[in-house]
Amino acid sequence: MDRLQRQIEFVAGIDRLKSVYRQSFLLDGSRSENDVEHSWHIAMMAVLLSEYADERVDLSRVVKMLLIHDIVEIDAGDVFVYDAEANKGKEGREKKAADRLFNILPPDQAAEMRALWDEYEERRTPEAKFAMAMDRLQPMLQNYFTQGKSWRAHGVTARQVLSVNARIQEGSEALWEYAQRIVSESVEKGYIKP
Amino acid sequence: MDRLQRQIEFVAGIDRLKSVYRQSFLLDGSRSENDVEHSWHIAMMAVLLSEYADERVDLSRVVKMLLIHDIVEIDAGDVFVYDAEANKGKEGREKKAADRLFNILPPDQAAEMRALWDEYEERRTPEAKFAMAMDRLQPMLQNYFTQGKSWRAHGVTARQVLSVNARIQEGSEALWEYAQRIVSESVEKGYIKP
Repeated sequence: MDRLQRQIEFVAGIDRLKSVYRQSFLLDGSRSENDVEHSWHIAMMAVLLSEYADERVDLSRVVKMLLIHDIVEIDAGDVFVYDAEANKGKEGREKKAADRLFNILPPDQAAEMRALWDEYEERRTPEAKFAMAMDRLQPMLQNYFTQGKSWRAHGVTARQVLSVNARIQEGSEALWEYAQRIVSESVEKGYIKP
Repeated sequence: MDRLQRQIEFVAGIDRLKSVYRQSFLLDGSRSENDVEHSWHIAMMAVLLSEYADERVDLSRVVKMLLIHDIVEIDAGDVFVYDAEANKGKEGREKKAADRLFNILPPDQAAEMRALWDEYEERRTPEAKFAMAMDRLQPMLQNYFTQGKSWRAHGVTARQVLSVNARIQEGSEALWEYAQRIVSESVEKGYIKP
C-alpha cells in the first residue's frame, strides 16, 4: 500500500500546477491561463496534429511528455519566454524541482517520469522535438486569437517571436510555415510590432 | 490547407472548456476547478495508476479518451453527478454537442474522436472502464483532500458517494477498495454524512 500512497501523494501534489499562471490569455481574453490548461491544450494539439511531424513519432510518448513537461514549475515558477533576464538560472531551478517532485513517486515511476522530462528538455528525439513544437505553437495561437494580447502587453516584436519560436521548425516544417504566416498576418493586423 | 484550418479551428474552439467550471475544488480550496484541469489531472492519474486496471489496457487510448471526454460540456455544460434532476436529458444534450463539436475537425479525425467518445460513454471496453474509474476517483480525492468541501456544500451522504462511484469497481478492484477506505475515513473525520 506504500506504493499507492506515494502515487496518490504525487497526484495530490501536482494539483498546485493549476495555480501556476502564464503570460498567455484564454481566447476570450478574460484571464491568463495556467500551466495545467496549457498542458492539456498542447496534449490535445499533439493528438490532432501529429501527422505534421517531420519524423515518425510515438504519439503516446509525446502526449505523456507534454502532460508532465511543466510540473517542475510547481517549484520553479513560470518564466516568460521573452524575458531573457528571468530565464537565467532557469535550468538549475527546474532540475532541482524535478529532483524533488518526481521522487515523490515510487522509484521506478520517478525514473520513468524524470527520463521523459530530461528527454523533452534535451530536444534530441523526434518525440521531444515535436512536443516542443506544440509547446511553442500554442501560445502563438493564444496570442493570434486574442489580437496579440500578451505580445502587446510586453511590447514583443515580430523578430523576437520568430526567433523564440524557430524551434517549431525542429519538429515540423509544415507547422513552422503556418506559424510564420501567423506572424506575418499579426504584423499586418497590428497585433505585433514589425 | 483547408485540413489544417479545420484542425486549428477545433484547437481554438476547445479553449472554451477552460471556462466550464465543476463542483470540485482545487486542493487549496481557493476556487472550483474547470473541466480542462480535471481532464489533465485524470489523464495524469491514468498514466500513473494503469497498473491497477483489472484488464490490460492500451494506455494511449485511455489518455486520449480522458483528454477529450468532457469536450461536449462546452455546449452541454457540466452537471453535478449527485444532481439527479439535472442529469435528466444530459445524454441527449451531450450527443448533440458531440455532433457539432467533433465535426469541426476533418471527417477522418471527427470520426476517430467521436468513436473514442462513444466508447467512453458506453463503458464496455477495458479502456473505457478504466478511464471512467479515473473520472470518478479524482473528484473523490479532491473532496477528501479539501475535508469534503464539495460534499459538505451539497449535503452529500456516504451512501450517495458509494453508489455514484461504484463504477470505479468496473475498472479497478484495487482502486475501488482504496476509494471505499477514503469514504470510511471521510465519515470518521466528519467530511461527509454517514
